[in-house]
Amino acid sequence: MEGIAPSAALAGGARLGAGVRVGHFSVIHDNVEVGPGSVIGEHCVLGAGPATERPLTVGSGAVIRSHGVLYQGASLGARFEAGHHVLVRAGSVAGEGVRLGSYSSLEGSLTVGDFVTIAGYSQVGPGAEIGDFAWIFSLCTLTNDPLPPSALFDPVTVGPGAVVCVGVTLLPGIEVGLGAFVAAGATVNVDVPPGRVFTKEGEIAGPVTRLVNLEAGVAHPWPLHFTERFPPEAQERLGALRERIVEVCGG
Amino acid sequence: MEGIAPSAALAGGARLGAGVRVGHFSVIHDNVEVGPGSVIGEHCVLGAGPATERPLTVGSGAVIRSHGVLYQGASLGARFEAGHHVLVRAGSVAGEGVRLGSYSSLEGSLTVGDFVTIAGYSQVGPGAEIGDFAWIFSLCTLTNDPLPPSALFDPVTVGPGAVVCVGVTLLPGIEVGLGAFVAAGATVNVDVPPGRVFTKEGEIAGPVTRLVNLEAGVAHPWPLHFTERFPPEAQERLGALRERIVEVCGG
Amino acid sequence: MEGIAPSAALAGGARLGAGVRVGHFSVIHDNVEVGPGSVIGEHCVLGAGPATERPLTVGSGAVIRSHGVLYQGASLGARFEAGHHVLVRAGSVAGEGVRLGSYSSLEGSLTVGDFVTIAGYSQVGPGAEIGDFAWIFSLCTLTNDPLPPSALFDPVTVGPGAVVCVGVTLLPGIEVGLGAFVAAGATVNVDVPPGRVFTKEGEIAGPVTRLVNLEAGVAHPWPLHFTERFPPEAQERLGALRERIVEVCGG
Repeated sequence: MEGIAPSAALAGGARLGAGVRVGHFSVIHDNVEVGPGSVIGEHCVLGAGPATERPLTVGSGAVIRSHGVLYQGASLGARFEAGHHVLVRAGSVAGEGVRLGSYSSLEGSLTVGDFVTIAGYSQVGPGAEIGDFAWIFSLCTLTNDPLPPSALFDPVTVGPGAVVCVGVTLLPGIEVGLGAFVAAGATVNVDVPPGRVFTKEGEIAGPVTRLVNLEAGVAHPWPLHFTERFPPEAQERLGALRERIVEVCGG
Repeated sequence: MEGIAPSAALAGGARLGAGVRVGHFSVIHDNVEVGPGSVIGEHCVLGAGPATERPLTVGSGAVIRSHGVLYQGASLGARFEAGHHVLVRAGSVAGEGVRLGSYSSLEGSLTVGDFVTIAGYSQVGPGAEIGDFAWIFSLCTLTNDPLPPSALFDPVTVGPGAVVCVGVTLLPGIEVGLGAFVAAGATVNVDVPPGRVFTKEGEIAGPVTRLVNLEAGVAHPWPLHFTERFPPEAQERLGALRERIVEVCGG
Repeated sequence: MEGIAPSAALAGGARLGAGVRVGHFSVIHDNVEVGPGSVIGEHCVLGAGPATERPLTVGSGAVIRSHGVLYQGASLGARFEAGHHVLVRAGSVAGEGVRLGSYSSLEGSLTVGDFVTIAGYSQVGPGAEIGDFAWIFSLCTLTNDPLPPSALFDPVTVGPGAVVCVGVTLLPGIEVGLGAFVAAGATVNVDVPPGRVFTKEGEIAGPVTRLVNLEAGVAHPWPLHFTERFPPEAQERLGALRERIVEVCGG
């Protein structure tokens, strides 16, 4: 893909940085700013929804794959990377180096820290706060309504470096602590203390340092064995996070 | 978005009411009727699929957000509101004021009552009947095959005002009664009587009137505390529903 | 839909067989081969992603419904049928007669046998091997990382004719045996022997021959009662599979 596809529909007020590429049949409305070097795939919509005071901002070097929908009033940091068919609503604020998997949605009025990874088919509800370097795997739901349906609002918090495995529901108001680990399929109904494991059976178990793969000789916390996915400028912060997790584990 | 985007592909037989707006790159095939004042977002397909006797009908004042796919032979009432990336197959019949969340699908040959809300990533299988004012939250599946895979067909029923929380599977043939409440993550394998709670652990518990939020001072049934989401013309019916739910709860 | 829509964007290097139809606003990049008689719906992207040595190949008589994204380097057999909004990444290899439901994804570097059916919203992770005639229902996840997040890689295997019901997670390294059956909502953490049932409660139960619907008078293994979905040329292989499943059940 080179330059801006002739078939793309760009509004006059859209501001694209140097070297931005836009795929076939994408639509970029007014009130949108895309940083230099970003790549927008085919059939995307940038600047969807009603007019907002703040524009949609997409940081430099971002990659938005095809069929993504980003609303006005969202703010996505440098090197934001989206899979296909994503949805980001107004008021979603994401730091640098965030990855959002295909079919996932940021429902707005929420904060995602730097270098967070969210896999596919996950839904981050309004009000959520996700700390730096956290992982949310596929088919997870971060809820906020304690008595559905109601107008009550009690969103969730996921601490820095925490890991939420596939198919997890975080019930309203839940806090998953720094470096904690939630097992696949769990429905989390109590706060998970920093560095602890929450099991599928609904119990808080020992520290994450007990999660080991003997065969491969690797163990949690994950920043001990899985740092290569992050760029050089993230390594120092990742090292500091690792020490904090080891500390809360009583290591 | 004003009027009909020049880039939209409208077949000669498509009938659009007064003031209908259509976004960029949307496709409207023949055998489609869209009511006045409706808004069709970008990259939608209306009138997909093989020819059907009845057209796709979309009521007045509907909003279909981007990347939606609506088949010929579906019938959607006034003020139908769809999120992004929805799918509605032939034979899906929805009443007035229905909301269908992003990534959700109505799989056809099914009935959705008035003022039903279906959140995102939910799949309503063929044959389902969903009563007025019911709520289906995210990542739910309404099944119909009792011995998968087979040609047997035993669809589900969700009563008026019932609430099905996030991540629920309704197994084939299940009836969720009027005003009943199914907790998040449950797999429902027995009928839920009207006004009762079905827990994640798979048990039928007390009436929904015991679901309370003490801090906020609100309690189920939900039409006691959450009526403002519905338009004035729905309020009388909602009041009658509330009384019926209170009655079945033994209140 | 007749022929190739004038609005479609076809790269010079795309090779389309005789009679291929392409819907409005679809994009076909270079390094793509589509077999004769195939139908590509609206808003699709064929040949997405970085250049690969092997092209994207789509077999003859395939149907790719709207908003599908198929990467370069994937290989899909004859009569491949995709729902709407699918995603197929590089290195996904699917046999003949495979059906992939709406919103589902093949994440690449995986093998899907002949006549496999995958329903909607399911995610087949890298490395998975799915045998002929297997069934994966909605909202399933086939994982591969035994210590998430890590660089460890331990993908899953689903045997021929096996049935994985709605909402199932197959944990890393799991083997679901030939003709086995995994109940709705299960998280599978041990291998399921051929012909056995894995329950939602996490236990291996008796042979699938005990799964019966008395009312309808039908019983598993499913190829005893559900063969009409497959074409005539598949029937002999299906009969042989049925005999193998009956055999492993001790029948």
